[in-house]
Amino acid sequence: MDSTTFQKLRLESVANVRKTIRAGSYDGHTAGLAPGVLQANLTILPEEVALDFMRFCQRNPKPCPLVGVSETGDPHLPTLAANIDIRTDVPAYNVYRDGRLACETKDIKALWNDHLVAFALGCSFTFEHALIRAGIPIWHIDNNTTVPMFRTNIQTIPAGPFSGPLVVSMRAISKSQVDLAIDISRRFPLAHGAPIQVGSPETIGIADIAHPNWGNPAPMPEGMIPVFWACGVTPQVAIEGAGVPLCITHKPGHMLITDVPEEAETPVLNFVQEIG
Amino acid sequence: MDSTTFQKLRLESVANVRKTIRAGSYDGHTAGLAPGVLQANLTILPEEVALDFMRFCQRNPKPCPLVGVSETGDPHLPTLAANIDIRTDVPAYNVYRDGRLACETKDIKALWNDHLVAFALGCSFTFEHALIRAGIPIWHIDNNTTVPMFRTNIQTIPAGPFSGPLVVSMRAISKSQVDLAIDISRRFPLAHGAPIQVGSPETIGIADIAHPNWGNPAPMPEGMIPVFWACGVTPQVAIEGAGVPLCITHKPGHMLITDVPEEAETPVLNFVQEIG
Repeated sequence: MDSTTFQKLRLESVANVRKTIRAGSYDGHTAGLAPGVLQANLTILPEEVALDFMRFCQRNPKPCPLVGVSETGDPHLPTLAANIDIRTDVPAYNVYRDGRLACETKDIKALWNDHLVAFALGCSFTFEHALIRAGIPIWHIDNNTTVPMFRTNIQTIPAGPFSGPLVVSMRAISKSQVDLAIDISRRFPLAHGAPIQVGSPETIGIADIAHPNWGNPAPMPEGMIPVFWACGVTPQVAIEGAGVPLCITHKPGHMLITDVPEEAETPVLNFVQEIG
Repeated sequence: MDSTTFQKLRLESVANVRKTIRAGSYDGHTAGLAPGVLQANLTILPEEVALDFMRFCQRNPKPCPLVGVSETGDPHLPTLAANIDIRTDVPAYNVYRDGRLACETKDIKALWNDHLVAFALGCSFTFEHALIRAGIPIWHIDNNTTVPMFRTNIQTIPAGPFSGPLVVSMRAISKSQVDLAIDISRRFPLAHGAPIQVGSPETIGIADIAHPNWGNPAPMPEGMIPVFWACGVTPQVAIEGAGVPLCITHKPGHMLITDVPEEAETPVLNFVQEIG
């Protein structure tokens, strides 16, 4: 079902994609759906650690670009889209208890409570779309696999109980297109911005690019350079380390689709954007 | 004394400027000091409203670009400079009680306590320096007055007790340089970014540009266009409206000087910036 639904959804409007997901009729990944709008990682935490988590995001903006935060107990994110309901609008969720993955679910209506705060963090889909539009092929998308991700020897800046290593994603870019890829991704600070390392995995503690810690291996043919971007798995590792009693995230790849245009100056609807 | 000290400080390193301020030897404004590094607005609030204030900043990034947040009770901001002590490193502070200005002071050592959180917000000095470097004259700087600021009819997006109108600052830019001014300021999202209105004050509820709500009037000669940027007075108005028991801010124009380069991709020292 998912594959057929996916092909249909690719032709649908953003509102219809979210409606289908909300109805529970699609639980697949969102890569390639709703082109042109910001997709986001989701993290839901109890209010007691929400201030610390916001501080963690503020101090580590490359892996954790905060694009939206709910009121405590309110499952809506009106700055990202008028009608988002965070309990139903993500195709699949991971539920963590005491820092460990407890279960996967299609909605979190039964789990939502008055003490929870929802955080949306920008994701790499945004700059990947822009790279593809500029003629830079992205192997893991062309081959329908998950981008390879690596733990690095770079430590995030801690906040309260949150700390841990920076996680990066890797894309093979041809030598002639590396500068272009850097310039394009730099234009999207809310989607990890410019890469953090180009060409020397060992300098950031990556011994073997053929064996990622998450995702699938990707080939590195002659003439291609490994380019590393800060990755949204970083906060997930920090949350696991913090052992928070309850945390809910999107299932990787199964993102929150917003109404915010990818090229918007700020991720905030209904408020002043730059002129003209 | 201040004028002589100011001229001396203009030639000093960032570290020496901060040392002089910390010693209580300078309580003047910081415009023109420590060129090339980010200066910041300061807001100190009790932890009870810190999460709401961070949400307010996240939802209103044009007037409230958050560049640093302290741990609760910790007067340091290591992501902005290794040795900042927020109790002494701003030349002059305003102390608000229950939303009203209670007093002005040169340091807040006696006021600091274990429940306070310090927030640093980017300020217009950053893009003004860039405009001047590009040959765009800034009248209020050339004439040593305060930029004119206006209450608009645009409402901020509320968060908890924080809400209120967007405040803007106005600069007269020659017709031929308006596009350049927009392009340059857009490059500094942590310093209010691109303007929010160009040329039509009445559309944002400003009836008379000769009578600003804050700061000094500035002339608008023939051939010049009024250009409006989101302004860091916006959170101050929101805080006054919220009636928070204790709030400490910098005295307008008397900013926190950081070690972060103005052109940095993120406002975070000691962490990965973009490559090369």
